[in-house]
Formats: sequence, C-alpha cells, structure tokens
Amino acid sequence: MTVRTLEVRLAERSYPVVIGPNLLQQPEHLVPYLSQRRVAIVSNETVFPLFGAKLKEGLGRAGVQPVDILLPDGEEHKTLNSLERVYDALLRHGFDRKSVVLALGGGVIGDLAGFAAATFQRGIPFIQLPTTLLSQVDSSVGGKTAVNHPLGKNMIGAFHQPRIVLADTSTLTTLPDRELRAGLAEVIKYGLIRDPGFFDWLEASLPHLLARDGSALTHAIFESCRNKAEVVEADEHEQGERALLNLGHTFGHAIEGALGFGTWLHGEAVGAGMVLAARLSHQLGLLGAGDLTRTERIIGAAGLPVEMPDITAEEMLGFMEHDKKNQDGAIRLILLRGIGKAYVDASVSRAVLIDFLKKRR
Amino acid sequence: MTVRTLEVRLAERSYPVVIGPNLLQQPEHLVPYLSQRRVAIVSNETVFPLFGAKLKEGLGRAGVQPVDILLPDGEEHKTLNSLERVYDALLRHGFDRKSVVLALGGGVIGDLAGFAAATFQRGIPFIQLPTTLLSQVDSSVGGKTAVNHPLGKNMIGAFHQPRIVLADTSTLTTLPDRELRAGLAEVIKYGLIRDPGFFDWLEASLPHLLARDGSALTHAIFESCRNKAEVVEADEHEQGERALLNLGHTFGHAIEGALGFGTWLHGEAVGAGMVLAARLSHQLGLLGAGDLTRTERIIGAAGLPVEMPDITAEEMLGFMEHDKKNQDGAIRLILLRGIGKAYVDASVSRAVLIDFLKKRR
Repeated sequence: MTVRTLEVRLAERSYPVVIGPNLLQQPEHLVPYLSQRRVAIVSNETVFPLFGAKLKEGLGRAGVQPVDILLPDGEEHKTLNSLERVYDALLRHGFDRKSVVLALGGGVIGDLAGFAAATFQRGIPFIQLPTTLLSQVDSSVGGKTAVNHPLGKNMIGAFHQPRIVLADTSTLTTLPDRELRAGLAEVIKYGLIRDPGFFDWLEASLPHLLARDGSALTHAIFESCRNKAEVVEADEHEQGERALLNLGHTFGHAIEGALGFGTWLHGEAVGAGMVLAARLSHQLGLLGAGDLTRTERIIGAAGLPVEMPDITAEEMLGFMEHDKKNQDGAIRLILLRGIGKAYVDASVSRAVLIDFLKKRR
Repeated sequence: MTVRTLEVRLAERSYPVVIGPNLLQQPEHLVPYLSQRRVAIVSNETVFPLFGAKLKEGLGRAGVQPVDILLPDGEEHKTLNSLERVYDALLRHGFDRKSVVLALGGGVIGDLAGFAAATFQRGIPFIQLPTTLLSQVDSSVGGKTAVNHPLGKNMIGAFHQPRIVLADTSTLTTLPDRELRAGLAEVIKYGLIRDPGFFDWLEASLPHLLARDGSALTHAIFESCRNKAEVVEADEHEQGERALLNLGHTFGHAIEGALGFGTWLHGEAVGAGMVLAARLSHQLGLLGAGDLTRTERIIGAAGLPVEMPDITAEEMLGFMEHDKKNQDGAIRLILLRGIGKAYVDASVSRAVLIDFLKKRR
C-alpha cells in the first residue's frame, strides 16, 4: 500500500497530511518538526499501550526521548481538569516555547492536546498522530482545538494548526467496530455536504470499508482530508463555508450533551444528527424523497443510529440554544438542498424545531 | 485636557488606543464595536463599585444592557479557576461568537478577561478598559492574555488583540499611591529599553507624575503606548524584539512567584528586577556606572523597591528556570548596554547568576 500526501495550504501555517501504513514507526516524518529534544506524547490509557512503544522506539533511534502524559480514555475526560494535568506535566518537565506536543489518539486527545499546545506559554508547536478513523478523516485536520464545558461541547478552545498530521492506517486494524462506524459518519458527511461523486463511491464501497480493506480506507481518508482541507483553506476561522462541516453536529452535539458526553460516540450522534437534518430539509421542501432515502440508507448501512435516543424535544432545544454557530439568538442549522448541497439556515423557528423534534420520538 | 489617540497597526487586527479623561462615560467610543446586545463586563470587586455604574449608565443610554461578571481582586485570583467562573457566566447568559467582553480593571482583569475572550468558543471580541496606570501603559496594549500557574506567571495564555483600548485617565485619581508607583515601573521601562529621550523627560517629570498632574500622566501614557505599539507592530508574537519588553521581568516574575503572587505588586517586582538587570549588566561590563546610578535613582525616586526581598538565590533561580523566554534550557535575560539600549542575552551561566544573586541579599 502506498503513502499518500496532501497539503493544507494556509500560508505560513501550511502543513502536510500524510496517510499510509506503519507511519508511527517512521521517525523520519516527525524529526524535521522537532526543533529540540523536549517532546511530550499526550495520549490515553487505551491508545498508548497499543502504539506508544512503536512510536517511542522510532523516536529513540533518532535520539528523541519523549515525556509521556497519559489521560483516562473517553469524551467525558475532555475537560478543563484534564487540561490542567497536561499543563502541570509540561511545566514540571521544564517545557518551553520550542518544545513540541505529539497528540497520539483519537479526536478527544487531538482536541485536548492541541488546545494545551495552543495555550501553553501562549502557543507551542504540536503534531497530530490520529489513531481512529474519525480523527484521521476529520478532527486532526484544520486546527480546531477545544475542551468541553458542562453546558456544551467544544465551548472552550482555539484555532491552532498542527505542524504535520500523520494518519497511520495500521492503527485502524485494532480499532473497535463501533469506532470504525462512528468514523464513517464523518466520511459520509463530506459526500453529503459537497462531494456527490464521493457519496456515490461510498454507497458502492461501504462493504469494503466495513471489512477494513486497506486501499478503500486509504482512499476514503484521502478524499475526506482533501475535502476538509479545501473547506478550511477557504475559511480557516469559520466565518462562512467552514460551518458546513457541522452538518448533523447541531443535533448531534445536543444528543451527546443530553445523554452525557461519552454515552453515544461523537460519530454516532453525528450519524443520527445528519438523518435529522435530512428529514428536516425534506419536511421543509428542500430535499427530495430519493435523496432523503439515500441518506438514511447509507447511515443505516454504516451501522449508525438513524433515530434520536430518548430525549425530550425541549431538552434537545436547550442544548441547541448553546451551539457555537448561533448568532443574535437565532439557531443556525446546516441543511441540505440535495446530496452534496449543504447550506447554512438561520430561518427555522424554535416552534418548527420543537414540533419537528416531537414527531421524531 | 485633550484626548489623544494612536493606532496599533497589525493589518486586519489593527485597533486604536484612546487616552483621555472621562472616556468610560462616553459610550460613543464603544458602541461601534458592539455588534449586538450581548455584552459582558468582566471586573473585580474593587474596581466595579468605582466605575461600573458610570460605564453602565453610558451604555444604557445607547441601549446596551451588559451582564456583570465580578471576580475577587488580586493577582492571586488570576487562575484557571477564575477563568472557569467567566466561562460559566458567559454560557449561562447565552453568549455566542458575536458577543463582546469588556475588561474593566487593571492588568489582572485585562489578562484574564482577554484570555477568556480568546478561548470562549475559539475566540470572541474584547475591549480593554484599563483603570490602573500599569494596565494603561502596558498590559492593555499588545494582545498578550494569560492566567498564572502555580509554577509560573502567565504560563497559560494566548495572543488575542482587543478591538479598542480606552485608557480613561480619570480612573487614576482614585488609584492607590502604591499602584501608581507600580505603574511607573513599566513607564520607566520604555525609556530604559529603547527611548533615552523619554527617559530624560521622566527624570525631569517624575515629581509631576507622582503628584498626578493630568497632562504629565497623559504624556507618559501616550509615549508608553507609542513605544509599546512600535515594538508589537514589529514582532506581534514575540519571536524577537518584543522580548525586550521583559526588561526586569525575569527577575521580577521570580520575585513574585517566590513571595507568592500578590505579595509584591507586579510593578514593584519589575522595579526591583530592572535594578537587578542593570546591576548585572554593570557587573558584566556592559553598562557604565553613570547609567546604573541613573537607573537606580529613578526607580528609587518613583518609590519602588531597589533591593531583592528575602529570597534565596536558589529559589530565585528555580523560578527563572521556568521563564517563557528560555530556549533549549538556557535562561534568557534582558540586559542593558546603556539607557535605551536593551538586548536579549542567553549567555549568562547559572553559576554566574547564583553568585550574582547571593551578593544581592
């Protein structure tokens, strides 16, 4: 299997995304970005035992002896509290502005380690080493970093681009099925919002992806990162188009928040959220029945939930009121005018939303 | 007394600094920057009773009803914990990405409210309303925001420029003498690092400044902000020249940390720190005896400490090891080759420093 590379072009903040097998064992990808010997690996207690030794062995051959900072596994630990543990460790080990943080793990680790790097001494370099499908296709690219607040997901954060993203596809062989499916939600998202050709390919290739066929996965990751890079290049700080990447996320974040972070995986909530967005788009006369069916079918076929969990409409709305996309008190949703045609809608009233959500239970 | 304005030129992040009397009562300066009605005033329990009503009355006339977020007064409250209180309040009041934070207070409030704005929903606008001499001449200009960590000052932070700085000189009439003197430390700093003409003026004008003469204070604030703006424009993210603004701060931060934040005021520690930097520069043969004497004399005349408090050399060095300017384990100091001629020095060994600090006790 070959290694594929693409560039996220953001002027002086540009960086490569490298996708391929066994990348964690190849320190030559990392060493050019380590300006000195002080390097920390931020990871969690599930991921580190799987890949930490390989990564450290390679770095050791290159003369780099990183410090390990391990957090408990799970979205419920993506908190200010965990962040403090990272700051404490960096300071205890004498890290300075030229030190580098390696984020080894899924989206939770990438977001949290990235935010720690964004804010430690007002910003130090970091590198994304995503080990889940979801983080390889979405959260590791684009520079969004954050922790959660009890009142909402990713409420505290910063834009801070990594120096390089290494998506080692070999890490996916040990990924639990449930997490593989959760990652596919974000892959499907790119087809739905802006790439109908990729959506067609996904409909045809879903069985290969679920069977973890290496070249199918590499293609899906590459096309996802290409789509994401194009969106981020056009709108790094989410003033406009970048908001489309939130398809399914307004409903999804509300589901995650209402159930308690970590009950459903982020990708599961986004899967159900995309179905809700498609159904609302259909109800509003925007999305045809055929495209709605294709959406429901592919999300169901990926093994993702297509129905809301047992949450009241009012509770859902309460969380949606705190969504970061909202402006001047209006709830902003990403809706669909067709497969590959997402847009931002701020015109749906609370009454219509409550009525829609009540019918969905 | 006239209002004076200067511009901090940072491309799309440029902003004005307005200096003059009674500015807090003039909402016309603020309203153009409030894109909607959700506005928070972050302040402390000492400052808000003095100026909060005036500020809110003016804003009320313009139809803006801000939310108040009050923190306890003091450097010891510039913590992650206080930051959480600000996040909680912003979320409880439904703040979004277009909401605006007003920082009403001294450097602690400006740094903390600025960091909250930098990281709330990945960045919202904020406005500096500095009410102490120190914050009017230094911390409110330049976009450095931060909170302290038990292992070091300003260790957690971000660069986030305000939309406007309003330095209302009327607030200085109620400023305690001790805080006025602390502010003068940063004013003197600009003369020492890069503006010998301003240093001459300060030597002559110190009695007027201590007597709170309005036009002398306005001139000192304007010249300080002009010097700071020039440095920040050349090096926004402290890759080089901006580090010179840290004259006296490596020693000063160590004094603050060792005594416990809040025991000495920041400006007091910087005053003593600048004397230490000048004496070390003299000992190293860089600074002439005449310039050392002028430095010691003006800092003493401003009523600032010119000797280290009762701290061991080893304890000082322990804090200096964590300074953000350090690179690759070397302590970087700002030293003087003359009045107005500061430079960054990374060549002073720990042994020389320990020996120097031991002699100072």
